[in-house]
Amino acid sequence: MSDPLTIEIISIGDELLTGHIANTNAAWMADQLLQIGLRVNRITTVGDDEKEICEILRQAESRADLIMATGGLGPTHDDVTRTALCEYFTCKLVVNKELLEDIKSFFGRRGIPMARVNTDQARVPATARLLKNDSGTAPGYVFSRKNTTFYFLAGVPHEMRSMMARIVLPELSQKVQTRLIRTRYLCTIGIAESTLYEQIGGIDKVAHEVRVAFLPGFSGVKIRLSAEGENEAETEGRLARAADYLRQNIAPYVYSERDMPLEQALALKLSQQRKTIAVAESCTGGLLAHKFTNIPGSSNFFERGVVTYSNRAKIELLGVPASTIEAYGAVSEQVALAMAEGVRRLAKTDYGLSTTGIAGPDGGSDEKPVGLVYVAWAGEEQVDVNMHRFIGDRHSNKERFAYAALNVLRINIKATGEL
Amino acid sequence: MSDPLTIEIISIGDELLTGHIANTNAAWMADQLLQIGLRVNRITTVGDDEKEICEILRQAESRADLIMATGGLGPTHDDVTRTALCEYFTCKLVVNKELLEDIKSFFGRRGIPMARVNTDQARVPATARLLKNDSGTAPGYVFSRKNTTFYFLAGVPHEMRSMMARIVLPELSQKVQTRLIRTRYLCTIGIAESTLYEQIGGIDKVAHEVRVAFLPGFSGVKIRLSAEGENEAETEGRLARAADYLRQNIAPYVYSERDMPLEQALALKLSQQRKTIAVAESCTGGLLAHKFTNIPGSSNFFERGVVTYSNRAKIELLGVPASTIEAYGAVSEQVALAMAEGVRRLAKTDYGLSTTGIAGPDGGSDEKPVGLVYVAWAGEEQVDVNMHRFIGDRHSNKERFAYAALNVLRINIKATGEL
Repeated sequence: MSDPLTIEIISIGDELLTGHIANTNAAWMADQLLQIGLRVNRITTVGDDEKEICEILRQAESRADLIMATGGLGPTHDDVTRTALCEYFTCKLVVNKELLEDIKSFFGRRGIPMARVNTDQARVPATARLLKNDSGTAPGYVFSRKNTTFYFLAGVPHEMRSMMARIVLPELSQKVQTRLIRTRYLCTIGIAESTLYEQIGGIDKVAHEVRVAFLPGFSGVKIRLSAEGENEAETEGRLARAADYLRQNIAPYVYSERDMPLEQALALKLSQQRKTIAVAESCTGGLLAHKFTNIPGSSNFFERGVVTYSNRAKIELLGVPASTIEAYGAVSEQVALAMAEGVRRLAKTDYGLSTTGIAGPDGGSDEKPVGLVYVAWAGEEQVDVNMHRFIGDRHSNKERFAYAALNVLRINIKATGEL
Repeated sequence: MSDPLTIEIISIGDELLTGHIANTNAAWMADQLLQIGLRVNRITTVGDDEKEICEILRQAESRADLIMATGGLGPTHDDVTRTALCEYFTCKLVVNKELLEDIKSFFGRRGIPMARVNTDQARVPATARLLKNDSGTAPGYVFSRKNTTFYFLAGVPHEMRSMMARIVLPELSQKVQTRLIRTRYLCTIGIAESTLYEQIGGIDKVAHEVRVAFLPGFSGVKIRLSAEGENEAETEGRLARAADYLRQNIAPYVYSERDMPLEQALALKLSQQRKTIAVAESCTGGLLAHKFTNIPGSSNFFERGVVTYSNRAKIELLGVPASTIEAYGAVSEQVALAMAEGVRRLAKTDYGLSTTGIAGPDGGSDEKPVGLVYVAWAGEEQVDVNMHRFIGDRHSNKERFAYAALNVLRINIKATGEL
């Protein structure tokens, strides 16, 4: 095998340096590149500043074989990447007539008027090869110099993604010597990272075959294994041996061996088993339904959701007895169970799932603090309810509450087969 | 004023280079630093690799006054930042007894057993000043050399944030010469970036006073103005003049002059007016309820949500006539209106809001393509319904559908006052 390519991503945009938005473009590109065996070595973010852009290009060119840059190609005054490119590659902006026609037709198709400022987008660096943008007006540019290839793509995520998928990734797969890298995941939930690590016992036993990373998130800790090899059989063999070893002591926590969130694994399971579900949410406020409905085809198993924020809604929409709420409080094991059973009964689904808790920042007490949640599952003959206490802000509490509910579902439907 | 500090963020972690997660830590830190007048110049991401970490530290040290690094301080084998620091600053790892006690007590408080691997976390670089971690086991480290100060913080977001808020930001506010930077936003919705830009007409008229950036996202285009000045009055004056100028031609699209998502502006408005709302969602699948309930105190105005994915649920939970669904289809103006009116009537709220559409990737037809959505609003005496066609994947369609619904609410409650 030849030496691996050195690859750098350059993200251009003041909004990234001010923290207005997170750099999701770089993450997406890195993931896509890895899937064709190209590992990114460095990601650098600089502002919308011609001098800075030229400087990082100089530094990256001295190190990298492939440079993937995004941002600053739009129509407004703060987009300076095009002029920086003219300086860096010593060329001029020239009008590209075909592009001008494309831009006009783009606005025509959407039936909205074209702003004059978009005409300027047909002016492109003279020595660049253009990449068509089918969902926006800013084309991409490709430059080559000595051993380095430079791609410049729009910063608007869906435009960049489309350009990568249609043109850049196919081009790279053909042109460059990609390495054979395969990854596999053990996605776990319900166990802390350090305990998981210890329970596995001796990562070093597999370190000669694979690279192991622990990736904690709201939906649990994912263990990523990656292996490089001469051929498919060898690479997959390494992954399989490592996964077999790791799985031994942590099997009860593993919900998938592919990289997916828990809701997706559950969606597959529910679809396979032709089971249906309905959810009743208090503290998660729609997030649980949102997670289920993020899965394409969710209408096959997801019948309905209700967000019963008020007690009245819990009584009216779910048939939770007012006396139960009075006796135990809305945040209680009893109400969680009544919600799960109520939504299952009314929706006539196989399963009901519910959450009731205190997401914060207000509403907590000594007895029932912020972060307390009850999650309940109801099936045909059984019910199950769990209590958890998390420490976090409203956003992370809602996420953890939702995954706690999904985990109750997992544990209970696992009993009927493998998840 | 003295020269501004040069500031770099270094994010360490293979999971960032493989694209497994987006770099939200860097965005958060940059935003927090900017709020105390410190503008970040560059963000670099490198892998969990001692050589790479030392190299980027060398490069950054040659340019920067302040280096803020995160990641690789955890308990597992893939966390190598601590040993890289020992090499870079030429020192050894030594056990810190106080820290060891802190780690033991941390596990005690949560009532979960301490993994042995956590003991190792009490070993720290000998020449570092330690920063206490109150929500995890990995402390932060501070080093100083010549004119550069280095902070190293845990990569787990809530641990990093707590450490920044409790220790680092107060320390920086005191020690360094921060600049007076103030920002203001004109948050818009319902107008494309290029049209917005053109409609304003002549950004250059304000460019001598403020920096203007256009930030497009699902919830519309935010215009960010930032100004630097000698004192508060001068800085705020610049922002106010620029905002007054820009506002003239785009006022109908502006929903807030502070940086907030539309749901937050609407939550403020609903709370002020003591109005209540209920939502009925089909294609947004809980996302609309989730957005409302992300706002602390949303129980004051958000009464309930229903996610009526099936036709049966639309009929049972919202009283949508089966004949309407049969005549026009579930994705229609008529059903959207019946949903909004139904949820308002049943929830006894001031307003009802609904979505019905096709999020994709499947389920579209020539007549009703993926991306088509109807959003409806119902008030006491009026109703309103809008149709939109978006181009995107399931995730972005759901987001845009939800904001289209929120925008119908905005337009209709705006009639009764200013939003």
